[in-house]
Amino acid sequence: MFFHVKELQYHAKPERPDPTYAARLQEVLGGQFGEISVAMQYLFQGWSVRGDGKYKDLLMDTGTEEIAHVEMLATMIARLLEGAPDVELEDAAQNPIVAAILGGENVQHKIVSGLGAMPADSVGNRWTADYIIASGNLLADFRANLNAESQGRLQVARLYEMTNDRGVKDMLSWLLARDTMHQNQWYAAIRELEEKENIVVPSTFPRELEKQEVSYTLFNFSRGDQSAEGRWAHGPSMDGCGQFNYVANPVPFAPAPVLKPAPPYIFNTPLWALRKSDDLPDPDMK
Amino acid sequence: MFFHVKELQYHAKPERPDPTYAARLQEVLGGQFGEISVAMQYLFQGWSVRGDGKYKDLLMDTGTEEIAHVEMLATMIARLLEGAPDVELEDAAQNPIVAAILGGENVQHKIVSGLGAMPADSVGNRWTADYIIASGNLLADFRANLNAESQGRLQVARLYEMTNDRGVKDMLSWLLARDTMHQNQWYAAIRELEEKENIVVPSTFPRELEKQEVSYTLFNFSRGDQSAEGRWAHGPSMDGCGQFNYVANPVPFAPAPVLKPAPPYIFNTPLWALRKSDDLPDPDMK
Amino acid sequence: MFFHVKELQYHAKPERPDPTYAARLQEVLGGQFGEISVAMQYLFQGWSVRGDGKYKDLLMDTGTEEIAHVEMLATMIARLLEGAPDVELEDAAQNPIVAAILGGENVQHKIVSGLGAMPADSVGNRWTADYIIASGNLLADFRANLNAESQGRLQVARLYEMTNDRGVKDMLSWLLARDTMHQNQWYAAIRELEEKENIVVPSTFPRELEKQEVSYTLFNFSRGDQSAEGRWAHGPSMDGCGQFNYVANPVPFAPAPVLKPAPPYIFNTPLWALRKSDDLPDPDMK
Amino acid sequence: MFFHVKELQYHAKPERPDPTYAARLQEVLGGQFGEISVAMQYLFQGWSVRGDGKYKDLLMDTGTEEIAHVEMLATMIARLLEGAPDVELEDAAQNPIVAAILGGENVQHKIVSGLGAMPADSVGNRWTADYIIASGNLLADFRANLNAESQGRLQVARLYEMTNDRGVKDMLSWLLARDTMHQNQWYAAIRELEEKENIVVPSTFPRELEKQEVSYTLFNFSRGDQSAEGRWAHGPSMDGCGQFNYVANPVPFAPAPVLKPAPPYIFNTPLWALRKSDDLPDPDMK
Amino acid sequence: MFFHVKELQYHAKPERPDPTYAARLQEVLGGQFGEISVAMQYLFQGWSVRGDGKYKDLLMDTGTEEIAHVEMLATMIARLLEGAPDVELEDAAQNPIVAAILGGENVQHKIVSGLGAMPADSVGNRWTADYIIASGNLLADFRANLNAESQGRLQVARLYEMTNDRGVKDMLSWLLARDTMHQNQWYAAIRELEEKENIVVPSTFPRELEKQEVSYTLFNFSRGDQSAEGRWAHGPSMDGCGQFNYVANPVPFAPAPVLKPAPPYIFNTPLWALRKSDDLPDPDMK
Amino acid sequence: MFFHVKELQYHAKPERPDPTYAARLQEVLGGQFGEISVAMQYLFQGWSVRGDGKYKDLLMDTGTEEIAHVEMLATMIARLLEGAPDVELEDAAQNPIVAAILGGENVQHKIVSGLGAMPADSVGNRWTADYIIASGNLLADFRANLNAESQGRLQVARLYEMTNDRGVKDMLSWLLARDTMHQNQWYAAIRELEEKENIVVPSTFPRELEKQEVSYTLFNFSRGDQSAEGRWAHGPSMDGCGQFNYVANPVPFAPAPVLKPAPPYIFNTPLWALRKSDDLPDPDMK
Repeated sequence: MFFHVKELQYHAKPERPDPTYAARLQEVLGGQFGEISVAMQYLFQGWSVRGDGKYKDLLMDTGTEEIAHVEMLATMIARLLEGAPDVELEDAAQNPIVAAILGGENVQHKIVSGLGAMPADSVGNRWTADYIIASGNLLADFRANLNAESQGRLQVARLYEMTNDRGVKDMLSWLLARDTMHQNQWYAAIRELEEKENIVVPSTFPRELEKQEVSYTLFNFSRGDQSAEGRWAHGPSMDGCGQFNYVANPVPFAPAPVLKPAPPYIFNTPLWALRKSDDLPDPDMK
Repeated sequence: MFFHVKELQYHAKPERPDPTYAARLQEVLGGQFGEISVAMQYLFQGWSVRGDGKYKDLLMDTGTEEIAHVEMLATMIARLLEGAPDVELEDAAQNPIVAAILGGENVQHKIVSGLGAMPADSVGNRWTADYIIASGNLLADFRANLNAESQGRLQVARLYEMTNDRGVKDMLSWLLARDTMHQNQWYAAIRELEEKENIVVPSTFPRELEKQEVSYTLFNFSRGDQSAEGRWAHGPSMDGCGQFNYVANPVPFAPAPVLKPAPPYIFNTPLWALRKSDDLPDPDMK
Repeated sequence: MFFHVKELQYHAKPERPDPTYAARLQEVLGGQFGEISVAMQYLFQGWSVRGDGKYKDLLMDTGTEEIAHVEMLATMIARLLEGAPDVELEDAAQNPIVAAILGGENVQHKIVSGLGAMPADSVGNRWTADYIIASGNLLADFRANLNAESQGRLQVARLYEMTNDRGVKDMLSWLLARDTMHQNQWYAAIRELEEKENIVVPSTFPRELEKQEVSYTLFNFSRGDQSAEGRWAHGPSMDGCGQFNYVANPVPFAPAPVLKPAPPYIFNTPLWALRKSDDLPDPDMK
Repeated sequence: MFFHVKELQYHAKPERPDPTYAARLQEVLGGQFGEISVAMQYLFQGWSVRGDGKYKDLLMDTGTEEIAHVEMLATMIARLLEGAPDVELEDAAQNPIVAAILGGENVQHKIVSGLGAMPADSVGNRWTADYIIASGNLLADFRANLNAESQGRLQVARLYEMTNDRGVKDMLSWLLARDTMHQNQWYAAIRELEEKENIVVPSTFPRELEKQEVSYTLFNFSRGDQSAEGRWAHGPSMDGCGQFNYVANPVPFAPAPVLKPAPPYIFNTPLWALRKSDDLPDPDMK
Repeated sequence: MFFHVKELQYHAKPERPDPTYAARLQEVLGGQFGEISVAMQYLFQGWSVRGDGKYKDLLMDTGTEEIAHVEMLATMIARLLEGAPDVELEDAAQNPIVAAILGGENVQHKIVSGLGAMPADSVGNRWTADYIIASGNLLADFRANLNAESQGRLQVARLYEMTNDRGVKDMLSWLLARDTMHQNQWYAAIRELEEKENIVVPSTFPRELEKQEVSYTLFNFSRGDQSAEGRWAHGPSMDGCGQFNYVANPVPFAPAPVLKPAPPYIFNTPLWALRKSDDLPDPDMK
Repeated sequence: MFFHVKELQYHAKPERPDPTYAARLQEVLGGQFGEISVAMQYLFQGWSVRGDGKYKDLLMDTGTEEIAHVEMLATMIARLLEGAPDVELEDAAQNPIVAAILGGENVQHKIVSGLGAMPADSVGNRWTADYIIASGNLLADFRANLNAESQGRLQVARLYEMTNDRGVKDMLSWLLARDTMHQNQWYAAIRELEEKENIVVPSTFPRELEKQEVSYTLFNFSRGDQSAEGRWAHGPSMDGCGQFNYVANPVPFAPAPVLKPAPPYIFNTPLWALRKSDDLPDPDMK
């Protein structure tokens, strides 16, 4: 069960309106790696933990914090849209900034949300649960989380460079720090599980059931052998269970497949049309 | 530029048709972590590498192999659909297996694809590029890749347990082994970049610009202190730049926000309707 | 800012596993009118309220409660999936219930989420922010909310009839009651705003700028005059500003449009191909 | 069955081309609350009415009219795109209006649709049936309709303010008037059904089966008691069946859930990895 | 402008309910090539025709008919759902048909649409405007239409074989005939435009501006030379402007690309991390 | 199985950066008819061919080439983004080109992809498998392919006119030529299959089972008889099996449908609420 307090976790107040930047900031609110994604991802992972303990608690701690980050960004975007000018195409002739706003703003901020933030990314794609993952396997999922925080902090860093507004930068510096923590915490949890299980997910699938002769092989499918120089092409494998090896000229292990014809009630191309194709005269065309 | 040979990388031949299993196997072909996702993800990452070298080559090697995995799965699914019976609701009364097929198959395999594989997951959602990421930052992206191979191998393992068909199991044992390699290789590449850069992405953003006082803090937003027991709550941070600390009772750092009214041309709720709300009599309703 | 407690708002414990019902229950978790939708809708509306006061507080109260409902449903679904049998097509021959499970379950509960709930509806469509609305106009949005609670309670009522499990029914009876309250509360808020503003949204757009001669006209575009019997076809309009009237045989007010040709750089069908079409001989085809 | 006449229901002729405005106007053609949405929503509701009579006729009357509105908007947008200049980045240096067009236009109007309207919203999201609802319960659905007309009229009013073109404003004044009628008519139909049934949807679900002790309770989940001032927190409930009450400090009704472990074939995190987590040494990391 | 009459274009009455078949029939109502797609595609094409004449009229004739087909299918599906049994998992033990229904039905027909048709395909994906095209070039678009009618008739033929219900078969025989006409009519229109323009779209782009040395070349990118036997590999090209030729061993025309590094404010992988990668010791891992 | 060489099929090097054009060029990479679509469409069709021979080989040849086109476009877009300026709203006041860039660029090229190409179209919609088709019927599918190449070449021609960059134009002239070939080749394959089968897809469905009295009828559903002038309204049908005829005033063939009421457990509008609607007093409203 959840409770809300009206105060923000951190300040979300720009120095001045900037509808163009408001459009861009939507990315880290409602984009693939925005705050909605991490909030939903951690909560769904937490609700699915079978058993109890510190991992579940960590997921619920962090998922709950991320809702507060959604709130901060929604507030910041609404304020960046305050005083949004009511401009038209003609006005652009007088002032190039008008042109920039006409092009750079997200028009749905005016037409649809009434100067509020939207659950969408920086080009207007609505948030979708396609972005998140909760698999029930915590090592796999913590890797998803470490990825999400890495992509997220990268995007916040890029956005930090795209504005001079000190209020915006102040809030982003908070988010950058929290992403630093979250990368650190998932990293710690991952290392702990890797120590206990092994680095290969899932660790409980019997290794003898996989085709072990290719479990540590790098196939060179892109001509050029630069990849042969990597750590992944020689020496002991990272999981400690094998030796990396490199195949410079990979060959197929199976013949070319030929599928059987479909039954008539499927109405695919009839077999005689495939077979007799070369006995027929070419079409008499212009 | 790419070339194709008609032979398969590995065998993709089931012992017998099974339309229900064909539907399930779609997950690792066209689902969030299916082979289309990893093929597209690695290729787009490879095409975006700025500079050259072993990382780019590794991405192109692996991305190209993954297209061959799409091909193997497409072939396997087409064969699982061969001889798919032409059954109707009445037939279910005679044979519960018919009932299972009627329910468990993906009807689009008959109606839409004509007994061919589809670029879709196990419940029919079409593949979407929402599933993939290529950010230009290789450490971030290799984490995305390690996650994708972890989720993918997990799903293949689950599917391995859902069939007795030795042909299917044989092919899945190949995919399991390749996923073992791919987890190992991205792991190796990640460790190498972490050694060179640091574990926090992006490593080049100046740390002094983030709000460092909360860079290593775990806020306890979910009541209960189990998460305080974790490695992430005490001791040196994983990036070696700070000390983890735990805040049992987090407080807000900013006041409750109040947004300014929107201009009239936005036609939001007028201010007087918000303000005078309590001076009006209650509506006289039935 | 938000806090979480680990206790549930209400019990979410089924009498026994039922993977088929788990699939169905997803509708009110992650469907168009599921709990994710109302949680996100109310929170985004609340964060966008310009000004302060009881409406904003009501939105935040209710949005926060809805996250707790997501949590209850996620828990219930995870429990309905416990002990999910590991069945294959052959098993269906022995037991029709196996056939029903093979068909009626959501296979992603096994393959993707590892027996956890998913942010998806009852046929597997992932949740999308296309489902929600926050316009900045509270009368409009409270109508969206009343609709959402009406559709939601309707779906819960239908699901209530689709199970005998007393644990499930007990939880649904809670959700039904809460939806009763939420319909009542949005109804009350709507009536209050209608009293203050008027029933037509937005109330602040000057009426003289609309084409008032058709502001209360029912055009009979579907042959048959049953709709003429309705309250909406005669008498004073509901907003008290006009008289309903009925047009039995509507006519167009504007001529048929003819669009000008596109410039050559658009490469549309060339005008001469449109114009000279009838001067050409018919194609001589088989 | 349907018939088409080539004349438009109302004029759709702008004074001059304006590709930027064409992009914006797409919102009320192909957006969430655009004319495609209401056309499809009313038609699907009408086709699903079980029984016959004035409600079905009203739905078909209005749904059919909305297709004519799609036609008017498609015509208007095609005309706003006429004479669209063929501009490039360099041209912007000479003329800021070029810059505004380059940014504000929807480039797909040139590349994809050849200066025609698109079934998409103002930022290019394609129309999706996720936007509509037809539940079979008319009171619920008429509320959806009233919401759609409220949101739609709000968006048209906002667009009215974003142009000086008298031809565009003339057409929008028609749409505003029709939306006034449609709000009035659904309002009338809603009130009629509420009189007959009750305000809570669905009215036929037995009230004694819901958890009635919380059917009229406002839980204060967002700290601060402003919502306690509302009509929804005291007095008789709007449905006349109970008394509103306010709970200042809500408590959970159920214990914290602990889920049972998943069976081995699901390959979730193994239990021993969860259990023994604290007995292991911390990972030895840099 | 449009008018509706309540009579159906053709009968849509099944002999008996069949919820499983209702789910399947959704494909040709709301799937990629269902009736919603062709209705919307032809109408948008018609509204975009620049100029006037028989092509525009043909588009509007056919688009308007397709709405009537949507209506017929919506009616048929609603009737197939009548008397849908209220079954649960336990009931499947008694009757395998119950198992088939539990699995084969679309549960949203009960939970969401209240036994009405849905704007969705046979696996529940909602209709999206991603399915349609209107480019402004009629030859291109008539090819899209011929494709749509080909795919559509194919799907209807497959569905015809999946039922014994004479009422359903009767309606499908109507749709098959109409699809025969529509294939014939678009074929006729295509041949007419090809006669006037040429077969290559767009015909007005100057041929000398394309890289004509590869305008009629088949590159053999898939090992094996079966494709060399085709009409497309030798002889005059179909457009009468060149000679087909076959390249057995295609070679690249351009060197391997190397992209320049990104500027620092993008925070991609730093160049030194790419460059110095091989001078560093391998990570010391377990 | 596939192989990659690092050289490009053709040059992909612009004269200078142009982030606005980079955004536009995305359409033919990741849009509905972009190179991802044709690559995936041809490969899936090829993998589904049942039987073997030249058609399958042709599909694999062309599908494999299209991946090389994706690569060329990804490279070109990455280069158009090189040196992308780091601009803010204030900078637009000095330089209208900045305004154009701020509006015309795809901001995700900076925030998300780090100056790399994205699997998305020119307005940011992510690529989706909704765009492609593989039906198992080659005549149907080759028509889909001819359409795709027609739409694709049309879009490339439009993009060719939107830039002065000679490097970009050079690459587009290659793509235009390849699209010329691909239109020619699918055309040749279509004619061959039409000769063998007949023009109506599927050719193997028994004609006597369709409602042949309307197989060649043009119904005039859009008032005005311009379409009666077309080849499709008179003379022998294109398939040689009938005579076209024209019905000026189409009439319905079936009565207006009335659906039976839903069972109570569906909670639709109760019948008495529908029936007694006119016996009740009008609501007493303001």
